Amino acid sequence: MRRSIATVCVSGTLDDKLTAAAAAGFDGIELFENDLVVSPWSPAEIRARCAGLGLSIDLYQPFRDFEGVPADVLELNLRRAARKFDVMEALGTDTMLVCSSVSPDARDDDALAAEHLSRLATQAAERGIRIAYEALAWGRNVSTWDHAWRIVRAAGHPALGLCLDSFHILSREVSPDGIADITPGKIFFVQLADAPHLRMDVLQWSRHHRLFPGQGAFDLPGLITNIQASGYDGPLSLEVFNDVFRQADPARTAVDAMRSLIALEDRAGLHPLPPAPTLRGHAFTEFAVDGGTGPQLREALRGLGFAHTGQHRTKPVELWEQSACRVVLNSAVTRPGAAISAIAVSTDDPEAALRRAVALRAPAHVSAHGPREVSLASVTAPDGTDVFLTDHSTDWRADFLSTGDSPGIGTGLLSTDHIGLTQPFDHFDEAGLFYDSVLGLGRLATEEFAAPFGLMRSRALATTGREVRLALTVALLRRGEWAPGVPEPQHIAFSTSDIMATAARVPQRLAIPDNYYADLAARFALPDDTIEPLRRHGVLYDRDAHGGELLHFYTPVHGGRVFFEIVERRGGYDAFGETNAPVRMAAHRHLRLTTGRATPQLAGDA
Amino acid sequence: MRRSIATVCVSGTLDDKLTAAAAAGFDGIELFENDLVVSPWSPAEIRARCAGLGLSIDLYQPFRDFEGVPADVLELNLRRAARKFDVMEALGTDTMLVCSSVSPDARDDDALAAEHLSRLATQAAERGIRIAYEALAWGRNVSTWDHAWRIVRAAGHPALGLCLDSFHILSREVSPDGIADITPGKIFFVQLADAPHLRMDVLQWSRHHRLFPGQGAFDLPGLITNIQASGYDGPLSLEVFNDVFRQADPARTAVDAMRSLIALEDRAGLHPLPPAPTLRGHAFTEFAVDGGTGPQLREALRGLGFAHTGQHRTKPVELWEQSACRVVLNSAVTRPGAAISAIAVSTDDPEAALRRAVALRAPAHVSAHGPREVSLASVTAPDGTDVFLTDHSTDWRADFLSTGDSPGIGTGLLSTDHIGLTQPFDHFDEAGLFYDSVLGLGRLATEEFAAPFGLMRSRALATTGREVRLALTVALLRRGEWAPGVPEPQHIAFSTSDIMATAARVPQRLAIPDNYYADLAARFALPDDTIEPLRRHGVLYDRDAHGGELLHFYTPVHGGRVFFEIVERRGGYDAFGETNAPVRMAAHRHLRLTTGRATPQLAGDA
Repeated sequence: MRRSIATVCVSGTLDDKLTAAAAAGFDGIELFENDLVVSPWSPAEIRARCAGLGLSIDLYQPFRDFEGVPADVLELNLRRAARKFDVMEALGTDTMLVCSSVSPDARDDDALAAEHLSRLATQAAERGIRIAYEALAWGRNVSTWDHAWRIVRAAGHPALGLCLDSFHILSREVSPDGIADITPGKIFFVQLADAPHLRMDVLQWSRHHRLFPGQGAFDLPGLITNIQASGYDGPLSLEVFNDVFRQADPARTAVDAMRSLIALEDRAGLHPLPPAPTLRGHAFTEFAVDGGTGPQLREALRGLGFAHTGQHRTKPVELWEQSACRVVLNSAVTRPGAAISAIAVSTDDPEAALRRAVALRAPAHVSAHGPREVSLASVTAPDGTDVFLTDHSTDWRADFLSTGDSPGIGTGLLSTDHIGLTQPFDHFDEAGLFYDSVLGLGRLATEEFAAPFGLMRSRALATTGREVRLALTVALLRRGEWAPGVPEPQHIAFSTSDIMATAARVPQRLAIPDNYYADLAARFALPDDTIEPLRRHGVLYDRDAHGGELLHFYTPVHGGRVFFEIVERRGGYDAFGETNAPVRMAAHRHLRLTTGRATPQLAGDA
Repeated sequence: MRRSIATVCVSGTLDDKLTAAAAAGFDGIELFENDLVVSPWSPAEIRARCAGLGLSIDLYQPFRDFEGVPADVLELNLRRAARKFDVMEALGTDTMLVCSSVSPDARDDDALAAEHLSRLATQAAERGIRIAYEALAWGRNVSTWDHAWRIVRAAGHPALGLCLDSFHILSREVSPDGIADITPGKIFFVQLADAPHLRMDVLQWSRHHRLFPGQGAFDLPGLITNIQASGYDGPLSLEVFNDVFRQADPARTAVDAMRSLIALEDRAGLHPLPPAPTLRGHAFTEFAVDGGTGPQLREALRGLGFAHTGQHRTKPVELWEQSACRVVLNSAVTRPGAAISAIAVSTDDPEAALRRAVALRAPAHVSAHGPREVSLASVTAPDGTDVFLTDHSTDWRADFLSTGDSPGIGTGLLSTDHIGLTQPFDHFDEAGLFYDSVLGLGRLATEEFAAPFGLMRSRALATTGREVRLALTVALLRRGEWAPGVPEPQHIAFSTSDIMATAARVPQRLAIPDNYYADLAARFALPDDTIEPLRRHGVLYDRDAHGGELLHFYTPVHGGRVFFEIVERRGGYDAFGETNAPVRMAAHRHLRLTTGRATPQLAGDA
């Protein structure tokens, strides 16, 4: 099916939007009237520009408050439509979206609405134009797809059909099942948007919080299946009003949009992709280090019981290990501050994974490598982190020469539990979709919490078996001048089966205030002999609704933005202890203030 | 009355918050539990720190989900409370806030709730502590102040009283009138927050969108009057959960908070301020210019028909005039780009205005001046703009030596219609309150609109007679890397009584696309002979619901961020043509792209 995008989905003036849509590979656009109105190009010039970019103009929208009005208003409305038909003719587009009226003048009279729409369709047909009637979820009289369909069917005009918009359908509690039974050919257009479940005015929800498919909570594959069953073969077109996308780089947003559509087509069974990779676990995590941050991270890893076990054959790259925990320090990549430059996950078939990634428009690479080196496939995530896909059946460590040191058991760390990455403000939803669609990491809960320097949002993704877990965080509002937290922190969490024993062997633990333990005792009704070892070791605690428990501690920040976390999960605890994140943030700040380790005050604490 | 602020109102760790509250002159704080929990200071240390800063701890909050529970849970809850009483004792605070339960376990049984609260109060009284019971607007069984009062009255315990929170009261459709009849002494605490009217889940509304008094839509003076009538003489305490304030500089937020409380006390008749000044009009507007931007602005002013009529006696300051439009170019102040450094309004009694400003914690100044110069009082607005208060009975132009040029009639500009200032993201609501409370400019409508590079919010303020008008704008989200618009634009709008005649004499008009006029004709059903002159002159058009009309045009951007607007208001049009702002923004961008005038791509287009 053809892929289309409404110009309202992305930021910029029309030129920015068209360029972005074409570069992302869309076949067509919906032209949102405001984008035309503010454009210095005439409709004919826009038509030529679109043609030059290989874009068709699939829809002109929106035409509002047309039907069910008094006779004199109807005449004015028909004249208004005629002006728009002139524009559409010059644009070379043949379908106009008419939204159900929100006007207080509109009468609740289906026969009248059908009659008026029929007159409009007649006038349109004379110009070779079709009318796609859409029920706005907040329409005054018509607010559901089935009501709109009854009116269209009653009108019985060949130039009048339906526009189905997934938001308007799925935001209401009306089943979309009957869509499959719509007369073939009467669905003229399909607009797709996802959204999170929000309890708010539906108009505000629609205008500010729509998302691309796969980024929200709607069952879009199910809807597509119904629409397909009706015989629809027009474009699938994204129409997403989103406050963040409206002010983000349109080129990136358009690629995110395209990825969402390709992933949706896969899920709906329209165009299957190579299957998502089976991820077996975290292979390693790579830090970019320099002369300043390298020594700090080495000291931190030694303090955690890691050994420097390998040196890369050809590159200034060190391998540090403890049991199945593996960290790589790379002096050949540059990032500001010690930063996670790459994560590596082990998979059965890196090449298939790479094909899927490429199909999903992810930046994919195969690393340059020497004759004796393992070839590494990678994709670049929205925050710039490289994700290496190592082959589960090959040991990537063959690239490293042994230093003679053995990994040993160190402090009892077992493996990488999860990796925590602060996301760039504009790309949080893009990142969720990226990891979900490209790597097949399912989305777990999204949490919001109040941190000392502002509200935060946290979204976890993981494989079904929890072999690989990621925790993505972002500030709810882009941070400004007052942002005294750690700038865009990143962390690796390692697992242990005995947090107290590990804590006793790790000297560099973040000090946790006594007040935290007093509150913990009250909150969970914990006895003193449970609280006391936690307090002594600076171990934090969380308990879920099923009695699962998390015990965890943190290290100070290294190199400006990196810290480590040690976790012990008990009884199937499946979250990330977000409730304790504010304690960590305040403690990191306190440590910085008291030790005088100045950190540049950049935006974006998490 | 004592003034208090909840620590949750401002950003930072506890130290930041206490320092900010004390510096802003608050008498006390409400200690929000999370701020204590993450603090490295013990309760005794916090008590000492507060005492050192002259702050009392007026309330410990919140204690949740206490009442109406099964017997075993009640025992656990009482033990939990006992732990909190330990903390409160060490803090030296004697009032604990208990919110009505949201737990599904809580029974809807007023007698049971009263009995439980009575037991809690007994336990509290033994420690010298009082319980202030508050109805959360989303409480499971108790969600209104009068319901909470019935329970408190039924309990009849001297250590049990009410906490009244303006948000929980005014967000519900329950009249606050009966509050005056509450038994004297039974209101233990009063929390104040304002909020805009929003149609959304009340919990989300409360947690994200509260504002300081005078920044929202609630009738807080009316509520205060009721509370006063009951004999309440405890602190008035601000409790504002706001996404922006949570991440903004706490020192500034605390001053904004204090200003809101002082202004509220004035409006409620508790502590009258010197009256708001009577503003007679815009006296002049001052631009900071340098060697680069000065020539650009001079050329622009000449193009608009201004004459350089005066030169300051002692400073590098030029006066430019046309009728009552007056612009001052000041080479002695520095701002990035040609920027409005000061606005000046004419008033009957600048000294009284200054006294009011000082009482409202506004940064106020009296300009240094030479022996023959007029003394100028000024206050600094939240965005750094100085607001001069000129004396209506004295001509401030006496400071200028005549150049011999006469103001003449130029291009028909009559006076300053309004000034448009982009506000810093963190200080938009602060700015509204500042102009409202300090200068007595009433708030007109707040509009939100979709602009090419993101959503915008615009708020107008004006005197009753419209002698002085300001239009403040801000991006709905702080802009990031993709922000190709004019960075933080500012403009002056001058009025004319014949826009076509003025346009014909002003060569430097911003070109408006033909598409705009085609849409305008359709939208307002305007005949060709009305549209044609508009199109020819690049004049934009708006019409309000009462038939009032705005005709206006813009100039290009000068010095990177300044443009001029010429407006003709007809038939009582009282808005600002915000609907045309996106057209202006796109046209400014197009001009910049086509003329190659590179502008630094900073954040914050409007």
